[in-house]
Amino acid sequence: MRYNPVTKKIVDELVEILGPKNVFSDQEKMEAYSHDETSAEEYGHMPEVVVTPSTTEEIAKIVKLANRELIPITPRGAGSGLSGGAIPTFGGILLSIEKMNKVLEIDDGNMMMVLETGIVTNEVNALIKDRGLFYAGYPMSLETCFLGGNIAENAGGGKAVKYGVTGRYIMGMELVTPTGEIVELGGKLSKDVSGYDLKQLIVGSEGTLGIVTKATIKLTGLPTAKSNLLVLYKNPKDAIDCVPVIMAKGLIPTGIEFMDKLSVKTSCEYLNESLPYQDCGAMLLIEVDGTNAEQVEKDTESIGDLCMDNGAIEVYVADNYTTQERIWSVRRNIAEAFKVVSPVQSLEDIVVPIATIPDIIPELDRISEKYDIKIPCYGHAGDGNLHATLVKNPNHTMEHWHEIEPKALRELYEVTKKLGGKISGEHGIGLKRKNYLKEVINPVELNLMKAIKKAWDPNHIMNPGKIFDLE
Amino acid sequence: MRYNPVTKKIVDELVEILGPKNVFSDQEKMEAYSHDETSAEEYGHMPEVVVTPSTTEEIAKIVKLANRELIPITPRGAGSGLSGGAIPTFGGILLSIEKMNKVLEIDDGNMMMVLETGIVTNEVNALIKDRGLFYAGYPMSLETCFLGGNIAENAGGGKAVKYGVTGRYIMGMELVTPTGEIVELGGKLSKDVSGYDLKQLIVGSEGTLGIVTKATIKLTGLPTAKSNLLVLYKNPKDAIDCVPVIMAKGLIPTGIEFMDKLSVKTSCEYLNESLPYQDCGAMLLIEVDGTNAEQVEKDTESIGDLCMDNGAIEVYVADNYTTQERIWSVRRNIAEAFKVVSPVQSLEDIVVPIATIPDIIPELDRISEKYDIKIPCYGHAGDGNLHATLVKNPNHTMEHWHEIEPKALRELYEVTKKLGGKISGEHGIGLKRKNYLKEVINPVELNLMKAIKKAWDPNHIMNPGKIFDLE
Repeated sequence: MRYNPVTKKIVDELVEILGPKNVFSDQEKMEAYSHDETSAEEYGHMPEVVVTPSTTEEIAKIVKLANRELIPITPRGAGSGLSGGAIPTFGGILLSIEKMNKVLEIDDGNMMMVLETGIVTNEVNALIKDRGLFYAGYPMSLETCFLGGNIAENAGGGKAVKYGVTGRYIMGMELVTPTGEIVELGGKLSKDVSGYDLKQLIVGSEGTLGIVTKATIKLTGLPTAKSNLLVLYKNPKDAIDCVPVIMAKGLIPTGIEFMDKLSVKTSCEYLNESLPYQDCGAMLLIEVDGTNAEQVEKDTESIGDLCMDNGAIEVYVADNYTTQERIWSVRRNIAEAFKVVSPVQSLEDIVVPIATIPDIIPELDRISEKYDIKIPCYGHAGDGNLHATLVKNPNHTMEHWHEIEPKALRELYEVTKKLGGKISGEHGIGLKRKNYLKEVINPVELNLMKAIKKAWDPNHIMNPGKIFDLE
Repeated sequence: MRYNPVTKKIVDELVEILGPKNVFSDQEKMEAYSHDETSAEEYGHMPEVVVTPSTTEEIAKIVKLANRELIPITPRGAGSGLSGGAIPTFGGILLSIEKMNKVLEIDDGNMMMVLETGIVTNEVNALIKDRGLFYAGYPMSLETCFLGGNIAENAGGGKAVKYGVTGRYIMGMELVTPTGEIVELGGKLSKDVSGYDLKQLIVGSEGTLGIVTKATIKLTGLPTAKSNLLVLYKNPKDAIDCVPVIMAKGLIPTGIEFMDKLSVKTSCEYLNESLPYQDCGAMLLIEVDGTNAEQVEKDTESIGDLCMDNGAIEVYVADNYTTQERIWSVRRNIAEAFKVVSPVQSLEDIVVPIATIPDIIPELDRISEKYDIKIPCYGHAGDGNLHATLVKNPNHTMEHWHEIEPKALRELYEVTKKLGGKISGEHGIGLKRKNYLKEVINPVELNLMKAIKKAWDPNHIMNPGKIFDLE
């Protein structure tokens, strides 16, 4: 696909649509829009022009212009993505939704909310807390990310065991299609089989099938009680074997996080914290929440008992905010801690059937040893989504790292595939994983995806170069 | 689209693939495959040949043959559908999955099950009950329907408020594409953003995007305690206003069923039952389940209190099997009861934002009066999915019914649309509603659907004539 450059004439037309304040192309100002949370050096690319529209109609006009002139458009949320999905690989127009951040409706009667998608996800819950309502579809990076990015990546997080991922809460959306049409999909409806479920196809499509400008999200009752368990095990297998035992009892924790010994040790050292990790080979961090404090306490107790009856060495209960924060801080800071060990790493989010997690641990050890790098393993055990992260050995050169990183990743993905897993559970394919995706995915499946993309975006202008290449 | 007839030569080729026992074309035997639970007179159509394959590979061969010879294929489950989705409108090959009914795996560790899709949905739970596991994704017609049909229609039912609909439980599938390729989508994974979520596109696509031959379904812990509340209100508005009050408290009932006065009265008369309906204008039937009897009791009490504090006249608790069965029997027999009043009816399943249910009741009264027919309203209040059913006036001729039915339906759908609703919440569009769908849906959305269909099924042989017509 050959694209045309963004000429002066096109910039003028953009200014006509958006006003001069919402169109800029000076290099310094555009730099921030040239990368996300992946390595800027490896994946970054400058746009030719950045636009910050405020309405759906403006976006539709820009998309129509881009089709007419054959210019790529890259939609962008907060830029907190971990797969390069918002990077303007082919230059062209970078369309930031940062000014599309209005709250359009809080509908208590239907327990739904209608929002523009440039809103910071965290603000959603702040707005509805006093009404006793709760938006459960948010990821770990909620302080920075936009709802629009969450939808694009079908973001998950630490609460997905109980609450599911973003897609479960997206009941309706306004979409600007790749050809610049505006369409409403779904609505304030809990069920709908009136034709194909297009909105769930859009969720997780990484902005390649259009730009979601508004979303109708489902709310639930605000959980008012919370408790956490830190459970120590001799080894990863004992820890993981416990998970289905808990779930089968109908006890649905909010989250079940897994940390291997290396992760806990590194994070504790980083935080100067002293969790009792010395004697254990793996930990589960189990959160329980609800609207009834008594019930949360009871479930916590039942889960603790189940863990002790099923191979745990020790169970620590954290039922107050301070202790809970201490424990979660260890979990949350694993990535940061390893950045201190080595700032160069490849943050992965493979997903496997939960029962196979113990099988992947020795494989990580094997790959780690082979390439002389560290691969801590932590993440969302309750849904099999593991941040098995390749951390560069500080003694290696960058040249060596660039040589071994793809090899080690390839082996990681091969093992993941062998265990029935997939290469991304919540971060997406984007730029970073597209060359690996085509190696592990069935070509028939890839062709079905490409067929949709081609049918909806005949000029291939909507976030091109993400997930797959169209030859 | 012109199709070719099924010639003797093609039948011979089918016999070669499947053996003589699995290919038949005598009219008497094929009659059962010519209709579903919609009116055979209005929608029925004979196939040219019926095939009953036993393997995915056989199905792939048949689909390739159909593409080569330009013959339509209509996949069929139990034939219990309510929108004509399994009717071979263009003749051709009727492909019944009735012999694809093997249980391939019960995986306790991952709490998943792998099944062929010709299994009767009810059998799934019978198989796993002793393991303390539960498949929550089933509809009301579970005694007869097949898992494959549930997937095709994204079936809902009376438990969807708590458990969601079929799609939430379909984690993976084996699909024969419209061009006869075999592909596995998803897997034993709770999360997956490795490319577009094609399996959720297939769910609810009514067999137009391929034939699902195997499914990996997610299981939960078996609920062991259950309680029901029958709550009486002065009018529908009071009843519906109660629903978000309950949900916002974080109390998630299994189901919240709504019955208007006419529905309750007719069902009670039919059953010779005596629920205390005389003084009330509407009822909610609220079910609570869980794994902890004490908690279920407590939630039931809280919900009852909330109802009394929010406009209910009276709350009856049914905590034993006999009373529960009595109440649910009234709910389940509404459709049957109206069949006695008049066997001719149009069973609808509109879905609206729950808070608008009170607004639709006077509209139903208006339409009912205008056409001199009865329109009882009952259904799944917890998710806004209402069986507002047009019941023929026994004093009218069939000719008159055929004249007014589409008019009354059109008005019903217009009202539904105006309230932000859709014309089908769980039964699907199929044949029965496709002409109405194109009137109420945004043409952009319809074109996006058609674009996928055309891209995946270039010869348009896979269940043609359902949901929409291609030109």
